[in-house]
Amino acid sequence: MKKIINTPEGYTDDMLRGIYEAHKGKVKYVSGDLRCYCTCERKEGKVAIVTGGGTGHLPLFLGYVGKNMLDGCGVGSVFQSPSAEEIYNITKEVEAGSGVLYLYGNYTGDIMNFDMAAELCAMEGIETKSIVGADDVNSSRDEGKRRGVAGIFFMYKAAGARASWMGSLEEVYASAERAKRNTRTVGFALTPCVIPEVGHPNFTLEEDEMAMGMGIHGEPGIWNGKLKSADEIAEESLGTILSDIEIGSGEEVALLVNGLGGTSIEELYILAGSVMRILSGKGIGVYRTFVGEYATSMEMAGASISLMRIECEEMKRELDLPVSTPFYCQA
Amino acid sequence: MKKIINTPEGYTDDMLRGIYEAHKGKVKYVSGDLRCYCTCERKEGKVAIVTGGGTGHLPLFLGYVGKNMLDGCGVGSVFQSPSAEEIYNITKEVEAGSGVLYLYGNYTGDIMNFDMAAELCAMEGIETKSIVGADDVNSSRDEGKRRGVAGIFFMYKAAGARASWMGSLEEVYASAERAKRNTRTVGFALTPCVIPEVGHPNFTLEEDEMAMGMGIHGEPGIWNGKLKSADEIAEESLGTILSDIEIGSGEEVALLVNGLGGTSIEELYILAGSVMRILSGKGIGVYRTFVGEYATSMEMAGASISLMRIECEEMKRELDLPVSTPFYCQA
Repeated sequence: MKKIINTPEGYTDDMLRGIYEAHKGKVKYVSGDLRCYCTCERKEGKVAIVTGGGTGHLPLFLGYVGKNMLDGCGVGSVFQSPSAEEIYNITKEVEAGSGVLYLYGNYTGDIMNFDMAAELCAMEGIETKSIVGADDVNSSRDEGKRRGVAGIFFMYKAAGARASWMGSLEEVYASAERAKRNTRTVGFALTPCVIPEVGHPNFTLEEDEMAMGMGIHGEPGIWNGKLKSADEIAEESLGTILSDIEIGSGEEVALLVNGLGGTSIEELYILAGSVMRILSGKGIGVYRTFVGEYATSMEMAGASISLMRIECEEMKRELDLPVSTPFYCQA
Repeated sequence: MKKIINTPEGYTDDMLRGIYEAHKGKVKYVSGDLRCYCTCERKEGKVAIVTGGGTGHLPLFLGYVGKNMLDGCGVGSVFQSPSAEEIYNITKEVEAGSGVLYLYGNYTGDIMNFDMAAELCAMEGIETKSIVGADDVNSSRDEGKRRGVAGIFFMYKAAGARASWMGSLEEVYASAERAKRNTRTVGFALTPCVIPEVGHPNFTLEEDEMAMGMGIHGEPGIWNGKLKSADEIAEESLGTILSDIEIGSGEEVALLVNGLGGTSIEELYILAGSVMRILSGKGIGVYRTFVGEYATSMEMAGASISLMRIECEEMKRELDLPVSTPFYCQA
């Protein structure tokens, strides 16, 4: 294992200490627990949005806590859920009188802990509503069973914008739900990653192999085989997405080409170029393109392609609202 | 070689096509040459700033072309200089009546071509002035012979701010020079990268080895040896930097912890935490911390640490000015 760390056990907390020190005055932790990550900005009467998930996916999840996006994030150990108590403590800190949206990925541990936190909040009269990202088309035919991956970024943007416009909890939820309903992702890996406390990869890929559909924790995909070209990968990925959601000629999408951590930005733009050419050939317009690292798997090489179908002008306004966090800024 | 590409020969131009398509209306190319990268924004009377260098370092170099930063960038093939003609064509496009600053890295090919471009410009009455980034302390004892690496970011910020405030060419140069004079970088690699048209790494490192002082094109460093901990790496790197530039207790610096491409953001924050603890122990304040991928070497794992000593309040204003490019945004 080749990582710049002090100890494998200290990975998450050392990272958090670095983040809090680097971004003092913007983010803080509460309840004396580094894992309770909150924005320093508070707007009375705004719906608060809380996310959470395991470490190892930066800028996901905590990286989206900031202006016009999220208010708090429960930070788990590497690839593990934060605890219900942590989520509850964060919620108490960030709720500002208008309820709290729990917006996170579709993973068993996270669901269990967010649900428990919601119950604790209900007992104190704090209203919450939950929605999970579940955009990974290849992870299941059943939409309800799909894993949440990079497409959650579009849900964060939508819900964050609506909350910043002082929408009600129902309205913030509806914006997140609309983004979710219209978003699909296909991802693939070229190399594995190493969980620090494990010390070795949990799978191997040959020097000329890729894994289509692999999850961001190394969950098995739909095929392992010869590495394809950028054009071929784009073709297959868009085929998968467009057979799952109808997007006709003349419609528009937002496009996110996301790097999993170990892949160069140069390659992401090559892939984005392939995707945009194919979409253009189908008469599908790209309203806005995002390229970079949005949801990673530490040093895993690979990428994902997310499309969000734009069904109304309001979705564009949500996409275009400037946001600013220590990890992500859109002017 | 495991890369998401179409052909090794098409790497640079396929990347550029993806970038122009993704960021239409923000950046464009001129003279019918994809390698002549320019901002779409023009401000009459502003000093223009042009950079350039080889492909393989995104967001360096072209990623800093945008609002309150740079105006144009000559794009070379992987690890190669852009041509003098390309730099000249970019210069003609972006110059806005007040002269042009050439600001790039200290590499032989780049110097030759920027100097030739400057001569071509002089013949047409376009005034230029040149300054090179040369911040890599371990690359030479002679400051004039040092390679330019991630620290050029601070020069871009300084010069970009001064130009946006309508400073003269002399003033823009002076801001870049002040940033240069106060900036030092130490970098190290954990894995090599692969030039697409070569197809294999140009060096190897054992599974438990790192290379201290390695350059962003794989230039040899000062030692290869056992991988150290984040704390040890920070200690050695700061020792090197602070023996080269005097920064006393009570003084302030800007800190940049930069990932070389294949290293996770989590590790960068662990390293940043180590650096900030050591600086704090020495009584050196950190005015602002930047952590992320600022100057990469494609998929190379590793990082660099840059300090810029802050010698006056004006340097803080230059650092704090919001900037926005398709690749980098600071609110």
